[in-house]
Amino acid sequence: MKKIAILGTGTVGQTFAARLIGLGHEVMIGTRNVQEKLSAPGKDGGKNAFATWHEANPKAKLGTFAEAAAFGELILNTTQGMNSINALNLATAKNLDGKILVDIANPLDFSKGMPPCLAPELSNTNSLAEEIQKTFPNAKVVKTLNTMWCGIMVDPTLIKGDHVNYICGNDEAAKTTVKTLLKEFGWKDENLLDLGDLSAARGTEAVLPVWLRIYGAKKMGAFNFNIVS
Amino acid sequence: MKKIAILGTGTVGQTFAARLIGLGHEVMIGTRNVQEKLSAPGKDGGKNAFATWHEANPKAKLGTFAEAAAFGELILNTTQGMNSINALNLATAKNLDGKILVDIANPLDFSKGMPPCLAPELSNTNSLAEEIQKTFPNAKVVKTLNTMWCGIMVDPTLIKGDHVNYICGNDEAAKTTVKTLLKEFGWKDENLLDLGDLSAARGTEAVLPVWLRIYGAKKMGAFNFNIVS
Repeated sequence: MKKIAILGTGTVGQTFAARLIGLGHEVMIGTRNVQEKLSAPGKDGGKNAFATWHEANPKAKLGTFAEAAAFGELILNTTQGMNSINALNLATAKNLDGKILVDIANPLDFSKGMPPCLAPELSNTNSLAEEIQKTFPNAKVVKTLNTMWCGIMVDPTLIKGDHVNYICGNDEAAKTTVKTLLKEFGWKDENLLDLGDLSAARGTEAVLPVWLRIYGAKKMGAFNFNIVS
Repeated sequence: MKKIAILGTGTVGQTFAARLIGLGHEVMIGTRNVQEKLSAPGKDGGKNAFATWHEANPKAKLGTFAEAAAFGELILNTTQGMNSINALNLATAKNLDGKILVDIANPLDFSKGMPPCLAPELSNTNSLAEEIQKTFPNAKVVKTLNTMWCGIMVDPTLIKGDHVNYICGNDEAAKTTVKTLLKEFGWKDENLLDLGDLSAARGTEAVLPVWLRIYGAKKMGAFNFNIVS
């Protein structure tokens, strides 16, 4: 049982929180302002989606980004990629120091139309994961799970047979710890493909452009890639 | 039986030429300067690789980029992506007008170290295929096959079971013609995934960064992706 911080209250964060609590972990979700997040009206003028979700998942503790990061022995970044550095700055370097920071976000830029492109400054010769590692050099950043729909991330058995989850990072021990967590989700060792150091995130974040096109063609996101040879 | 032009004398061009000749097509390979290409000494001071290949494949006609493009009813771009627009300019717009131009190249920039990145001006919010289409508006550009090792492109049965080949382009009839050629190579209909118009090449060309990382991790390129759900 681990104390796990989830930064971000969106669908990805909710999916991880529910799954991790189900597996017996202690979870705190971090957001900018807890009261605002819970009290902002929803689209229909009624209760918003996060407040509704939290009533159904009361074991998920809520806190600021800093409170959650301080609580977590391991931290998951599920914020929107364009906002991740801001959110992690609010979490503060001190609360990330020496900890494993699993980066699941993608630097998708929705400002230029749909489907989104990658943020030019965070892609190709850089990546969001590397930018996070540069900004927080004492965190142990591990990139994984960002190449698929979140339902599959936490339950790979939703898809029959083999399909791949990439993992990369600069700290071998941190990758080993994250692989253990991935196996709790149901990932098989042989489907975890270690691509080496964190610069491989340039490759795995660049899966999104084709992922989004396949999603558009198939009109469903519950798919993943298998590497066959 | 078709007259097919292959622009580019590298391994990809050679692979297509041999396969298309084997299938009964008439092939002309286009290069900047045929005599230079055939007479340049090889690495060991002896005969160069292309001259040796051509002796073994004498049915492949040779010509300039313009001669090959004029010859071809259908044209394959197998040049290096960073040089493709130059090569196609030498082929001339007149020789491409109204023809199907199958773009197999990737805009890999080797100038910033290994593995290569994508050319910033030809990726993310643009693609090589779209740049070619903009430069030669009367050609019918179809992007396909660029996401795998060339051996698999022309013989998908090298890999057992299903694996995907993306296709995109703005001209539906051109895509249908190219699919017929792909089926001659052995591609099954259900493994050809039509991603829509040519802007989807932003996605398929962006497969290269992760492809190169997988190649680095597995130390072999004879793999492909299958989409599972």
